[in-house]
Amino acid sequence: MGDKVNRQWRLKSRPVGMPTRENFDWTEESVAEIKDGQVLIRNLYFSFDPTQRGWMAGPTYLPAIEIGEVMRAGAVGQVIESKNPGFEAGDFVNGGLGWQDSCIEDGTGPMGLQKIPPGVPIPMAMSVMGLTGVTAYFGMLDVAEPKEGDTVVVSGAAGATGSIAAQIAKIKGARVIGIAGGPDKCAWLKEVAGLDAVIDYKNENIGEALDKHCPKGINVYFDNVGGEILNECLARLALNARIAVCGAIASYNDETPPPGPSNYMNLVIMRSKMEGFLVLDYLDRFGEAAMQLGQWVMSGDIKFQVDIQEGIENAPETFTRLFTGKNLGKQLLRVAEAPLGGETPMPAG
Amino acid sequence: MGDKVNRQWRLKSRPVGMPTRENFDWTEESVAEIKDGQVLIRNLYFSFDPTQRGWMAGPTYLPAIEIGEVMRAGAVGQVIESKNPGFEAGDFVNGGLGWQDSCIEDGTGPMGLQKIPPGVPIPMAMSVMGLTGVTAYFGMLDVAEPKEGDTVVVSGAAGATGSIAAQIAKIKGARVIGIAGGPDKCAWLKEVAGLDAVIDYKNENIGEALDKHCPKGINVYFDNVGGEILNECLARLALNARIAVCGAIASYNDETPPPGPSNYMNLVIMRSKMEGFLVLDYLDRFGEAAMQLGQWVMSGDIKFQVDIQEGIENAPETFTRLFTGKNLGKQLLRVAEAPLGGETPMPAG
Repeated sequence: MGDKVNRQWRLKSRPVGMPTRENFDWTEESVAEIKDGQVLIRNLYFSFDPTQRGWMAGPTYLPAIEIGEVMRAGAVGQVIESKNPGFEAGDFVNGGLGWQDSCIEDGTGPMGLQKIPPGVPIPMAMSVMGLTGVTAYFGMLDVAEPKEGDTVVVSGAAGATGSIAAQIAKIKGARVIGIAGGPDKCAWLKEVAGLDAVIDYKNENIGEALDKHCPKGINVYFDNVGGEILNECLARLALNARIAVCGAIASYNDETPPPGPSNYMNLVIMRSKMEGFLVLDYLDRFGEAAMQLGQWVMSGDIKFQVDIQEGIENAPETFTRLFTGKNLGKQLLRVAEAPLGGETPMPAG
Repeated sequence: MGDKVNRQWRLKSRPVGMPTRENFDWTEESVAEIKDGQVLIRNLYFSFDPTQRGWMAGPTYLPAIEIGEVMRAGAVGQVIESKNPGFEAGDFVNGGLGWQDSCIEDGTGPMGLQKIPPGVPIPMAMSVMGLTGVTAYFGMLDVAEPKEGDTVVVSGAAGATGSIAAQIAKIKGARVIGIAGGPDKCAWLKEVAGLDAVIDYKNENIGEALDKHCPKGINVYFDNVGGEILNECLARLALNARIAVCGAIASYNDETPPPGPSNYMNLVIMRSKMEGFLVLDYLDRFGEAAMQLGQWVMSGDIKFQVDIQEGIENAPETFTRLFTGKNLGKQLLRVAEAPLGGETPMPAG
């Protein structure tokens, strides 16, 4: 495969505001030979995650993506050649493979290289049983800790993490209110995911809707969006409430830092806490979470959606879908069929 | 005492910005006869606390002070007549006695009525062994939980709560940096209270000073002030940091809600929490805290300051000292000598 071409999207400039195609360079290079310890992977699906916007901007919990570097992204591919005893040709692997056709890896990068268990469809491994599902699992169960009868509010509730977080709270016996944008997402949350109430932030006054659906205040707020919704939830905390801060997609593209939540002093009045977390801290318990999430999918307690776009040339535009709220559930991009076959199909429905 | 006059400060209007004398009415009325279960108390010292500004504005964790109501305040007085078997004439009692010469109480109000143990000087019972000291005790030990070697930052560090919180963190083996306004307060913190470093926010760039004194980041921030200092501390959190939110005096007089802390997303990056607390939740453990604090004073591990102004006519102006930062340590106002005697003098020095 030394003469084959590897097409890549590289970071050209740090975005100001919404990332666009202009922030990336399209490059093509030959695929190199692998050395001992390495594997050659054909990338099949890219994962799109709001946190990538932070990696493009500067150092966060990971170093910044350097200008000229292949765009960092979670992705799943198939091993097509291996000089690493841990992997063999045909394996499906998940890691920080980046926006490119193929990738040479030894599994020591910050996102590692994990085999996808046989029989698990790749889109499921990349969503409910992947980092976003596991983020929901630990954020809800370890940080937010909903109790039976609690009123739980989840923003970004139709997203890859929010939708799973909301359903985990339901499983734990909470009353769950989801906040999402637009009637399609809200209908899915109410009718398919079975939430108790839904707020369409694009068409409803958030404060009034929260007053209506949370008459006893909010015991748990799982925050994916930050901004005004966080502030409105802070204003309605119940005593000893927990806010699990997962993200703040509302402001990731702001050119100046947005104002913080002016109602944060309600944390004192209601003796409440606001806690940030990162799924990277729970990687040693990834298996536990993925297995439980898979069982909940099998039992029908958790529904999930994947939004699969097509074609490596569309990677930048697929990324912007996250910030315009176009994605229904986990955003993926299919870039190739498995060259060695063996992919498990998604279950019907 | 039925023909004696009780001079009172009543709330006339809710303050806009800094509270002034114009927000209060001076009234005089006769002292009533007490009924069974009640005691008549001669007030001796008023306590001044930033939280009173919130009570004046509207409902918080306590109902708002009503217009026309005697200004709610912690105070210590001497029982001069009792029809309550729990109290006898001569007792010194602490409670929500209000800005007035005398007060009839049965001990069932939201602030209760606690006897001051014999031998404890009243200013000590109202500061380091009172609500502000106990607030520092539980906020630092139960919420912030400093560990040996941690870098702990305390704002409002020369205040009644901050000064005790900072010294408790020292006792627990932390490196403690105090933030206060002006050279006098900073000198006291460094030379008397023994903090490791002090930042004079009136004369230093807070961000640069924090960078200098917290090269490994901040493990614990005990926040009395909110505003820009909170935001600068959020920008410098160490991993798994704890922010104990005690107050936000920087903004209590703002006419519009101040912007929240725009750096709050660092809670996610550093997997940290920001937690509010109120001493009212710990009243059942008040005795434990007061006893420990008293022992630390006796052993010399904790130093404290009280700032005692004189005369009930000066209550409004004494209150504003809190917000202009004039007070050195706990702000009190002496309004009378104990009519039945028996007050324990403050220790020398």
